[in-house]
Parts: sequence; C-alpha cells; structure tokens
Amino acid sequence: MTRFNTRPQPTPVQQPTPMPVHRYTPFVPVDVPDRTWPTKRIEKAPRWLSTDLRDGNQALIDPMTPSRKMRMFELLVSLGYKEIEVGFPSASQTDFDFVRQLIEGDKVPDDVTISVLTQAREDLISRTAESLVGAHRATIHMYNATAELFRKVVFRISEAECVDLAVNGTELVLKYADKYLRDVEFGYQYSPEIFTQTPTDFAIEVCNAVGDVWQPSSGREIIFNLPATVERSTPNTYADQIEYFIRHVKNREHVAVSLHPHNDRGTAVAASELGQMAGADRVEGCLFGHGERTGNVDLVTLALNLYTQGVDPQVDLSDIDHVRRTVEYCTGLPVHPRHPYAGELVYTAFSGSHQDAIKKGLEHLEDEAARQGKTVQEIDWEAPYLPIDPHDVGRTYEAVIRVNSQSGKGGMAYLMKNEFKMDLPRRLQIEFSRVVQQHTDTAGGEVTPKEIYDIFQREYLTGGPWRLTSAGSTSSNGQFHVRATVDGPTRHGAEIEGEGNGPVSAFVDALVQAGAHVRVLDYSEHALDSGGDASAAAYVECEVGDGDDAQVLWGVGVDPSITSASMKAILSALNRAFEPAIP
Amino acid sequence: MTRFNTRPQPTPVQQPTPMPVHRYTPFVPVDVPDRTWPTKRIEKAPRWLSTDLRDGNQALIDPMTPSRKMRMFELLVSLGYKEIEVGFPSASQTDFDFVRQLIEGDKVPDDVTISVLTQAREDLISRTAESLVGAHRATIHMYNATAELFRKVVFRISEAECVDLAVNGTELVLKYADKYLRDVEFGYQYSPEIFTQTPTDFAIEVCNAVGDVWQPSSGREIIFNLPATVERSTPNTYADQIEYFIRHVKNREHVAVSLHPHNDRGTAVAASELGQMAGADRVEGCLFGHGERTGNVDLVTLALNLYTQGVDPQVDLSDIDHVRRTVEYCTGLPVHPRHPYAGELVYTAFSGSHQDAIKKGLEHLEDEAARQGKTVQEIDWEAPYLPIDPHDVGRTYEAVIRVNSQSGKGGMAYLMKNEFKMDLPRRLQIEFSRVVQQHTDTAGGEVTPKEIYDIFQREYLTGGPWRLTSAGSTSSNGQFHVRATVDGPTRHGAEIEGEGNGPVSAFVDALVQAGAHVRVLDYSEHALDSGGDASAAAYVECEVGDGDDAQVLWGVGVDPSITSASMKAILSALNRAFEPAIP
Repeated sequence: MTRFNTRPQPTPVQQPTPMPVHRYTPFVPVDVPDRTWPTKRIEKAPRWLSTDLRDGNQALIDPMTPSRKMRMFELLVSLGYKEIEVGFPSASQTDFDFVRQLIEGDKVPDDVTISVLTQAREDLISRTAESLVGAHRATIHMYNATAELFRKVVFRISEAECVDLAVNGTELVLKYADKYLRDVEFGYQYSPEIFTQTPTDFAIEVCNAVGDVWQPSSGREIIFNLPATVERSTPNTYADQIEYFIRHVKNREHVAVSLHPHNDRGTAVAASELGQMAGADRVEGCLFGHGERTGNVDLVTLALNLYTQGVDPQVDLSDIDHVRRTVEYCTGLPVHPRHPYAGELVYTAFSGSHQDAIKKGLEHLEDEAARQGKTVQEIDWEAPYLPIDPHDVGRTYEAVIRVNSQSGKGGMAYLMKNEFKMDLPRRLQIEFSRVVQQHTDTAGGEVTPKEIYDIFQREYLTGGPWRLTSAGSTSSNGQFHVRATVDGPTRHGAEIEGEGNGPVSAFVDALVQAGAHVRVLDYSEHALDSGGDASAAAYVECEVGDGDDAQVLWGVGVDPSITSASMKAILSALNRAFEPAIP
Repeated sequence: MTRFNTRPQPTPVQQPTPMPVHRYTPFVPVDVPDRTWPTKRIEKAPRWLSTDLRDGNQALIDPMTPSRKMRMFELLVSLGYKEIEVGFPSASQTDFDFVRQLIEGDKVPDDVTISVLTQAREDLISRTAESLVGAHRATIHMYNATAELFRKVVFRISEAECVDLAVNGTELVLKYADKYLRDVEFGYQYSPEIFTQTPTDFAIEVCNAVGDVWQPSSGREIIFNLPATVERSTPNTYADQIEYFIRHVKNREHVAVSLHPHNDRGTAVAASELGQMAGADRVEGCLFGHGERTGNVDLVTLALNLYTQGVDPQVDLSDIDHVRRTVEYCTGLPVHPRHPYAGELVYTAFSGSHQDAIKKGLEHLEDEAARQGKTVQEIDWEAPYLPIDPHDVGRTYEAVIRVNSQSGKGGMAYLMKNEFKMDLPRRLQIEFSRVVQQHTDTAGGEVTPKEIYDIFQREYLTGGPWRLTSAGSTSSNGQFHVRATVDGPTRHGAEIEGEGNGPVSAFVDALVQAGAHVRVLDYSEHALDSGGDASAAAYVECEVGDGDDAQVLWGVGVDPSITSASMKAILSALNRAFEPAIP
C-alpha cells in the first residue's frame, strides 16, 4: 500500500449566521413513541380531492376567469378526480356564480362530488348551501380556527368557545342542508384550522364534538381534514400527529381522515406520504402544487410516486404535457423545468456518464424483452436515471439525451443512432465526441441533434482534396481487384488499381501504389435503413501518413453501394489528415 | 339537534388508471425495525457541501461560462459555504481550467475546501490530482458504480470486481496525492454510486474496504457520501438506510457520513432532514435545487428550515433576493414563484381571511414587543401564515399582502394603513372591500396598492355635488357653534349654521336645518402623519336619506384642520348617497 505523506485536512468549521436566529423556537411535536407508520408502505392510492379551483385559485396573481375555471374543472374530471373543491361561494360572487354554472350547466358527472368551503357563520353557511341547490353529489366543507395563535390573536376566543363555534356551525350546516339540499347526495367535511398548530388533543376534542352532531354511521361518513396550512416542521411530525389523531378519533370506521399539506418547508409531498403511512385515507392538493404561498401538495407528483411503485394512482396522467399546458394556461404560472415528472428537463441527461448508462440500460431492456419474446412495454421497467418510462406520461426518448459541453460520447452516439441511424463504432464515438466538445467549448450551450449531425457531416462527409469519381471491383477465388478514378491533392482523375482479399484492402493497395500513405486498422459497415435500395454507411479507422507524422483517424463513407461507401470512408480519413474540417 | 333528512353521500369510487402500472415494482427497503431516527430532532446544522459548480452545472442547458462559474464560486464563499465541489477536471478541459484559475488566481479562502470529482481510473485520477497542485485545502471525491443495475448492465462487473475498483482507485488517489499534493491539506471522499439502489450491506462492505486503504484516524477523516442519485422511494427508507449504514460502518468516529439526495419524487428536502435525524453529518446539494433532472436537494430550503426552528444554519441568507438573482444569472434557470423562502409569491397572501389574520398577527407582535419594552426583532417571531419574518431574508412587508378578487377587507385595510397611513374603521373596511371587489370582479387580476388608493380616492374623496367652501366653529361651555358655506345639489354657496356638543354634530345640525337628511352613526379620526402641520383623516358612518330610502354609508375627509376633515367626511357620505363614484 502507498504510504500517505500529504498533510491531512482539518475538519471544515462553519461560521455562525449573522441572521437573528434567536427569534425562532423549535416546533413541539406530539409524543408518539410507539408510532407504527415508519414500518408501513403505501399499498393503494388515497382518495384525492383537488382544490385547484379553491386553494389553488385564491393564490393566483390573476385568479381564473370563469372560462379558465371551467377548463380546469373539465381537465380534473377527465383525469379521473372524483372529489373537486370548486370554490368559496359565500366569500365571492364569482365563486357562487361558478358553482351555479356547474350545476345548471350539468357539467358534473354523476360520480363526481363537488365541494365548497365555508366559515362557521350562519349567513355564510346558508349562502353556501344555497349555492349547491340542484347538485347531484355535494359536500359542504366547514372550517374554523382551532390553532392557539389564531384563537388568541386573531379571533380572541377560548377553547370552549372554539368548540361551540364548530358544533353550532355543524348544526347550521345540517339545518341549511335540510332546507336546501334534500335531493342532493350530501356529505360533510370539517377542518380544524390549522391542525398542525393546534394541540393534537384539542383538535381531536373539536372533531369528536363535531362528529357527535353529524353522527357518522355506515353510508354516512364524515371527513375530518387535517390541514398543515403552514408547514412548520419535518414531515415525520405530521405523520405522528395523524397516527395519534387516528388512535383517538371516535367512530374511526366512518371517518375519512384527510390530509391537506402545504409546502412552506418543501416537504409537502413527504408529509402526505408519511401521513398516508400513518393511516390517512384521503389527500387534498393541487396539480403541480399551486395554492397559497409555496402551494398545496402536488397531486401529480403524489400520483406518479405511487405509479413508480406499481401502485395504481387511479388518475390518468398519460399525457402529462397536456396536463401541464392546461394548468399553465389556467393559472398563468409556469411549471418549473425541474418539476418532478413534468418539467422540461426531467427526462434529460446532459452528462456523458449518465447518457452512456441510459443508452446501455435501454439497449438492455430491449435485449431482455426480446429474450422473453415480449415488448419492452410488457416487462418490468428498470433503467438508469429514469425512474419511469417517459413514454408512460406521453414524453418521448427524443428529449432524453441532450448534448452540451458536459456530455461525453454516449449521448452523441445515442443521438447519431436514434436520429440518423448511424451506429458509430466505439473508438469513432470517442473521436467524434472530442470534435463536438471542441465545438461546444468554443460556442457554448446545448447542441441539438441537427447540429451534431451537421458537425458530423462537415467533419467526415463533406470531402476535401480526395474524391472518388468512379470505381469498380471484380473478384475471383476470394481475391478482389479494384479499379477506380480518384482526385487527390496533387492530381485529378487518376486511374488507380489494386488487389486485396476484399474491396477495402484492394482499394488501399491501389492508393498505396499511387503514393498515398494509408493503412486500415479497423472497419465496420451497416445498412442505413431497411429495404432493397438502402444506403450503406462504412466506418474505417486508418493510419495515415508516414513514420513520425502518422496519425490514426476515422473516416466515414455513405453510398448506395457498400463497396463505394467503404472507399469513400478511406478517402474521408485521408481528407481529415490533410485538412481537418473543424480546426 | 336538527334532524338530518338529506340523502347521504356514497363514498366516491376512483377508477383504475389506463397507464401500464404493471411495469413497476415497489422499492425494497432495508429492514431496520429498531430505527431511532423518528424520535430525533435536528439540533445543529450539518456540514454543507455545495455542488452547484459540478452536479448543478452538468445539468444546465447552457453550462456556466468561466466568468459565471467564478461569480457562483464567489457567491458560495460569501454565503459561508466551506466545502465547494468545483468540477470534474478529468472529464472536461473547461473544468480543469477553472480549477487552475481558482488556485492560481488565489480565489479560495484559507478555510474553504475545494473538492473535485473523479471516476476510479488511473489516468483520470492522475489528471484530477494534477488539477489541484498548489491548492491550500482540497478533497478528491472518487466514485464508482455499486448499484446492481449499473454493475450488471452498464459495467458488467461482479461484486468482487466492484470492490477491487474502489480499493484500487483509493490506492491510486493516495499515489497521485503523494506525487502532486504533498503541500495540500488533503482530504478524501468516496461515493458508492447509487447508494440507495445498492444493497446496503454491500455498500457498507465497499466503504469499509475503501476505509481500510485510507485508514481514517484522528485528524484524518474519510467522507462516505451516500447518494440517492435517483430518488426511488419515500424519504423514510433513505433514513433507514443511513441509520443502518452508520451502525455498521467501521471507524464511525473518523467517518463523515454525507447525504447526496436528488429530488425525483419531490422529497429530497425530507430525505435530507430524516437522514440527518438518522445521524448523517454532512449534506451535499445546490442552491435552489439545481442538478441533473429534478435537481439536487435545495441547500437554501434546508438552511432556512433549520433557521425557523432556531437552529443556526451557519450560512448567511439575509439577502435572499441577491442569492436568487445571482443563481438565476449563473444557471440561466428561474427560481419558481412558489419556491420555499425565495419565490416571488411566498410572503404574499391574497385571501381575505389570511390577510386579516396576518394583519392582526403583526399588530399583536408590535403590541407584545411594546409590552416587553423591546423591538419586534427582539422577541420570538410568531405570525399567522409567515413561518419566518420576511425581513430576516431581506424581503419587506410591502409585498406581504396583495389584493385580488379573492381578497377580503384585511388585505386592503393593511395596505391602506401601511402604504397610505389611512387606518380605516372595521365597518368601513367591509364597505370598502365590497367596492374593491366590484372593481376586481369586473376588471380581474391583482390590484396594486396604488390602484386601491385610486379606487378609495374616487369613491370617498373626489367629491360630488356637496362641497365645503369655508367653515368656522366656536365653542362655549361645551356647546359648539358652526358656520359654513357649502355647495349642494340644488344650491351653491349656501351659508348654513348649526349647534351641537361637538363640531361634527353642529355641522350635521346645520345641514339638517338646511334640509339635508343625514345622521351620524359612528365617527373616528386620526392624524395622517406626525409633526405640527400634519393632515387629519376623519371617517364618519352616516344614515343618509329619509324613511325607506335611508342608506347607511361611510364618508371620509382629509384636511389639515381636523374640524374641516370631519365636515368633509359627512359631505363625502352625502355625495356617495347621491351618486356613487363607482357604480
């Protein structure tokens, strides 16, 4: 073993932040030492509620117009969402009118439940119930503030007054549902707001009191929605709160425990997943995570996370770009290029080693499928750096491999093969990647497949002083005779002749007899497409020049005749030695 | 209790996705039934490594130019990052040159360690060591593929060959460090790639074999970096893997266990946090989560998540917009408007109830600070919907409350008070919010503070048929006498007189005597700014009109004289009753 003489490195020491960190105190979680959620897995999709039209809409710089709302609603229905919160009708005339438009325009399929939000005040509850007259299936979602900060600072009420508000509100929901909604398949949802900042025991107390009014039973569930309206701690604490809630809520079997996470700490997806492991039945969120401030949890990411584990997400995201474009249109906000599953860059690899691995992985999948007598779509998906097959969400491989100055040979080879059917030998890949890298190091930026092909053509196919004008070959007893007319740097229209054990060696022999210094080191060729009049591509690695001046270079030739293609490939190598197209 | 007669709602049934979910299988986690991380809290910042210049840069459409790289490096140093991965010098001439530029240009402070990545091949390791000649503190970071898929499909090597590659590579690092880097404070980092997709026992075996070569000891640590290069499962499984790794790695006390999460499932932040709870010492990531595909974990979110818990992040993010702008410039990619802590919209509330709560919360903080004889900056931060004080990251309250058609009175009241010093009484807030809502329901979109003020001015201050031309008041024994000249709808320049127990009631008396129907229900006023010649604002709630035609309306007056301001306020109410400025 090598003895180690360099100076060892002291451990880096970070410095205190100059920010006033003393102003903040840690979140105090509920204590659940016997939690079981870390041992669980998510084995089925939760019930989804989309709040794109309520929480998502109320946080837009430019709230959706009625026509954009309708477009969003239709999108959600088409994707398979069965519970859709459509507005806050008592707070906004626009929302009230939109609910009426949905109902009166018969826009809601029979198996879709629309839901509307209200505060716990009689005038608002009455107006809310009124908005739903004539609906087929509808839920009133009532909330009141139970979090200590809100109780004390914003509403100035005691815990007992807070419970009363929730209980009275629930009674009023019953009263006005009875008045207006006797023909509606009617559901009720209650949210203790903000659940995560409410002492969990008190949240349970309020919910149980609300449940006593509603009296859930078989076919008469109550939804307790437990919002993390502001995300305040690591996601495991939310899961602890959910598990604790579920242990203590009455009538658990008739309660739908619902999550409503926001993303202030960037962990809303995790909070939802750990919350499901803790036993929650239902998740509220928005497509691509719209909603107040940092947004609600992203329903698309949650669904596709399930999908990658073989769990049916029960929504159809097979055309994710359509979903993305529609949501961008409705919200006026972009989906980030790095957004999981949907961003422009997420099925893209720029680095050479990633590209190389993906190329090999995809080839392996094809081989494996062929071995099993199946298609790639029929066997288990497993590919480096691609947690799902981009095809499954309507993306294509074309965008998978993109080439810039950080890329290696793999990406270029993949593009040359897939876009232009040129299957470059490995050492030619290495040589060509240097040519491309010279180009990108100079010009910077990404290189498109078209640009790569242009570089390839200029470097290998454009010609130079050496040019084949005509050629013919005959063979007898395995010996080939070639006769050709070539232009060279010093002479035009030279007639040359040579012999060899194949047309390539015979042509080289002819060139050498005519004074050229060239030797073939490696050779391969393939048809460029299928069919009788297919062109062929030939690749030759040549040593060109003499003694110390000798260089090893690849040449490439394309021609309907495979023989002419290989002759052109040799001249391509000579031309590159004479004057590289790209300096 | 109300009896409930409406039809109960059947539980919604979701439908299977048409996507080929059969292609995917669940991630198989390591089994750690006695895990302890769910009981832990993060009590100090991890060591940070920024890989913005390596992993972040290799995934850009347009990789950073040398000058942008330098700008990024300087930013990272200025924020307090002490470990910075600066490139992959053996893979790219640009990277090699940049490392040389840093060292030769003396750009690296003495307490900052630069780090460079290499694969485990002799020519690459030699070139990598060469790139670091003359550095003060430097780390070579070597990786090789240990994940089964990569071993089998991409590299086609056995487990034993894989261990050999890591061991031989480490020996070569020692050899070339010894050759080139004797004067460098030298460190070594090894990554089993992709850790999360490697059987954890095998990852431990490889790391322990690498450790046997390096022989970590006091002052001679080894960094084992455990990449989730592709995020494949819920974040708790990463924490399980980390806890398991830590239990079985040799020489734990001289090993820095490092996390390197990517965000394919949108849970990289959570994975990092749970991984720290599981005992990791160090986190690698990028500012705002750049990096291949969905990006590396976001170092900014991680740091500010700690900050909100009172844990010193040991980096300075007090000017987050400067950080954001610089990163956007260097990467050519935007930070999303909903990005935690840094997005344009994250300190913004559009909804009325949120705005109202924020307004009350901020007022409560001021009251609380005053009560304690301190500034708001000196007491614990706690405010609805604002997990941190926007000031702490260089944002201001001006952007906190934004008003659109979803907003209620709170936001408008806040803006009127903070931007224009007009402290509207509560019922006036309600009235005015309806006026603004009429405007936004018609015009759509966000309303700026200026537009709100314009609406306020047109509605309350512009005038109409009623106008005060002159006024005077005298008082004796608590009785006020007012004499004024007013224009009215039917008469110009009317001289009116009245009496009352204050100038307001005397002026109303004068108007009533002159035939107007007006009664004052509520009144308040305040100075508009401090100083001797301050203007005053007066707000009066009036009943205007007679019998069934009577309306309750607010009027507002502004004048250097408080008496004139209140008279103008009454005329404002009369004018609004006569012809509302905004229909």
